[in-house]
Amino acid sequence: MKCLFIVASGAGDRPIKRLGNKTPYQLAHTPNLDHLSEIGEDGLMDPIAPGIWPGSDTSHLQLFGYDPHEYYFGRGPIEALGAGMELQEGDIAFRCNFATVKDGVIVDRRAGRIKEGTAELARALNEIAITTVPGVQLIFKESTEHRAVLVLRGTSLSPQIIDNDPHDDGLPPTKITALEHTDAAIRTAKALSEFIDKAHKILRSHPLNRERELPANYILCRGAGVLKRPPTFEEKYGFKGAVVAASGMIIGVGRLLGMDVIIPPGATGGYDTDLTAKADAALEALKTHDYVFLHIKCTDLAGHDGDPEKKIELIEKVDEMVGYITRNIDLENTIIAFTSDHSTPCSVRNHSADPVPLVIAGGDVRFDYVKHFDELSATQGALFKISGKDLFPILLDFMGRAKKYGA
Amino acid sequence: MKCLFIVASGAGDRPIKRLGNKTPYQLAHTPNLDHLSEIGEDGLMDPIAPGIWPGSDTSHLQLFGYDPHEYYFGRGPIEALGAGMELQEGDIAFRCNFATVKDGVIVDRRAGRIKEGTAELARALNEIAITTVPGVQLIFKESTEHRAVLVLRGTSLSPQIIDNDPHDDGLPPTKITALEHTDAAIRTAKALSEFIDKAHKILRSHPLNRERELPANYILCRGAGVLKRPPTFEEKYGFKGAVVAASGMIIGVGRLLGMDVIIPPGATGGYDTDLTAKADAALEALKTHDYVFLHIKCTDLAGHDGDPEKKIELIEKVDEMVGYITRNIDLENTIIAFTSDHSTPCSVRNHSADPVPLVIAGGDVRFDYVKHFDELSATQGALFKISGKDLFPILLDFMGRAKKYGA
Repeated sequence: MKCLFIVASGAGDRPIKRLGNKTPYQLAHTPNLDHLSEIGEDGLMDPIAPGIWPGSDTSHLQLFGYDPHEYYFGRGPIEALGAGMELQEGDIAFRCNFATVKDGVIVDRRAGRIKEGTAELARALNEIAITTVPGVQLIFKESTEHRAVLVLRGTSLSPQIIDNDPHDDGLPPTKITALEHTDAAIRTAKALSEFIDKAHKILRSHPLNRERELPANYILCRGAGVLKRPPTFEEKYGFKGAVVAASGMIIGVGRLLGMDVIIPPGATGGYDTDLTAKADAALEALKTHDYVFLHIKCTDLAGHDGDPEKKIELIEKVDEMVGYITRNIDLENTIIAFTSDHSTPCSVRNHSADPVPLVIAGGDVRFDYVKHFDELSATQGALFKISGKDLFPILLDFMGRAKKYGA
Repeated sequence: MKCLFIVASGAGDRPIKRLGNKTPYQLAHTPNLDHLSEIGEDGLMDPIAPGIWPGSDTSHLQLFGYDPHEYYFGRGPIEALGAGMELQEGDIAFRCNFATVKDGVIVDRRAGRIKEGTAELARALNEIAITTVPGVQLIFKESTEHRAVLVLRGTSLSPQIIDNDPHDDGLPPTKITALEHTDAAIRTAKALSEFIDKAHKILRSHPLNRERELPANYILCRGAGVLKRPPTFEEKYGFKGAVVAASGMIIGVGRLLGMDVIIPPGATGGYDTDLTAKADAALEALKTHDYVFLHIKCTDLAGHDGDPEKKIELIEKVDEMVGYITRNIDLENTIIAFTSDHSTPCSVRNHSADPVPLVIAGGDVRFDYVKHFDELSATQGALFKISGKDLFPILLDFMGRAKKYGA
């Protein structure tokens, strides 16, 4: 028995007043998801625990059966792996933005969402040598648009520092400071400060920035984390898992867990993503993997943009993709689980702790009375409400891969 | 307020395709269980936790309110107690099979399900003296059919060994090895190896085996466990509990917890068991005990045999037994709880992690909307879904025996 696990990021929502107090899932026409609800078990899931506001990183670790309390060491290393960097155990990684600073104040945290030339800027920054702290190397790599990753490598470094990102325009960069009185934290704060100052000097005089209205003349860092390798998915479960995704963070989680990461052509992580390409990649991956994780990012974006009409439209596209998959899959021998990593209510424009609807179907999974896939119908389901940590064991049991507890 | 707790082992199931996608509970005619559902609270129960595949031993410890993570030390000691052996703290016990080995390969793990003469074979094996490891005694006792129990007694022994049972025919016995680099594990592996070799010599030349097509010429051991006595049921709860059962494992759990174990005549743990004798024994025990546990094994066998028609037939017999009990019990002053230790879906032919339906009725327990006892109806019950660890406290509260938390 194989398993296809589909996550429509942030698709869960709250009732939207101007749309008759219904959620996007309730308003969308979703015959294929409804079919899964009808032939499967439904319920709600707290990605982490009731009332806990999940990050995408922590919730995804949990969805793969890795307790984030044990295995989450900050966002930086996940982004670094997502950007294709080779990390070593103990590396300190930061998510970075190219930003615009003028007269000591951040005027744009994203440097006008700079799209071109960041690779060249990154090359210049990799020339920086850290001289105030012995034995520290740096690696800087551009990512999509204004995004980048910084890695500090060396003995005795620590992520316990205050970074320089105030998370708002119109403020000066925050002073980088050690968060604890340890050599490692003090060394890291010193090395990072030196890098930021030297980077600023290099960037403000870089030819690429001369014609930019919003020059990419400053590096903002956040999400400091240290790489510690968890057991790989295959070590932990004894079989191979694949991740089909376009979003850097999910790619990073997949690589962190040593899974096979597949980035289909046309999959962008944006509104324009090619869902059929993703479905095809997942169906193909199921031929060689017992477990395939298919991640859809765009529904989350509509939540962050506060756009319920867009979310409804995307949910309907996702539903068509689900129909395409169910027509091309052997449901007798494959479990499909469909859920979200967290809710992203359009009214909140960010993640929330609202539990997400969940359906598990295929094989001989039990039925329940639920016939529509949405937050309200799910309250009547046979799964009741589970925690994120329960989902992977349930799937393993349906796959016939659980280990008996006792005899 | 007294409590009668009935477990129909493995009765919970999954939808059976060739029977219109209904479960045995849905298909069976169960007016008496339905009556309990109508006058009581219904729900589902994860015996251990969502997705955790329960053994019968761990789930029963949990059903008696003993956390198996704290009190489970392997199946061997439970089987030994079930077979009527007197154990001492620190004894290492194994479940054993008489098996047939030919040219170094196991040709039948059950020696043709040998029925007669095992007591005589066991007597011969008890003559073995362990000479390679000082201070180790052995006790070997036959159980039902091909089953037996071996106890190693001595200082510094450990269950941390790889046993010799490969769990399949056509393979050589597994090499007995210490699982950890401790004196105790090494001593135990050595003593067990010596026993197995000497037992093989004795058995293959034993007169009883000469005429057998599948001679019982080899001992396979598994389920190594060390006896550690938990607090007795009476010490833990302050009142006496009785167990009515025929299955060795349940008898063993009852004895482990110091409960009064009643094995009614005619109760076999098989398809031919006398359920009325069991009901009578339980009703009788309720006169002298506030808590009586009534275990029915046969429903589980039908699951292991993959035979839904048999399971339906047995559920209907169990239902008649429940009717007999409710006609002969004072439901004003007795709580009846009816559930399973785990699901044993006919399609899986083994336990699964699917939650089990549960009803609690009697006294002035609340009602709910559920009027039929089955997996689907239970999704609408007032108990929602609980964990095995929650059940005993709920029963204690209905019995008026819970301890107040706070004031």
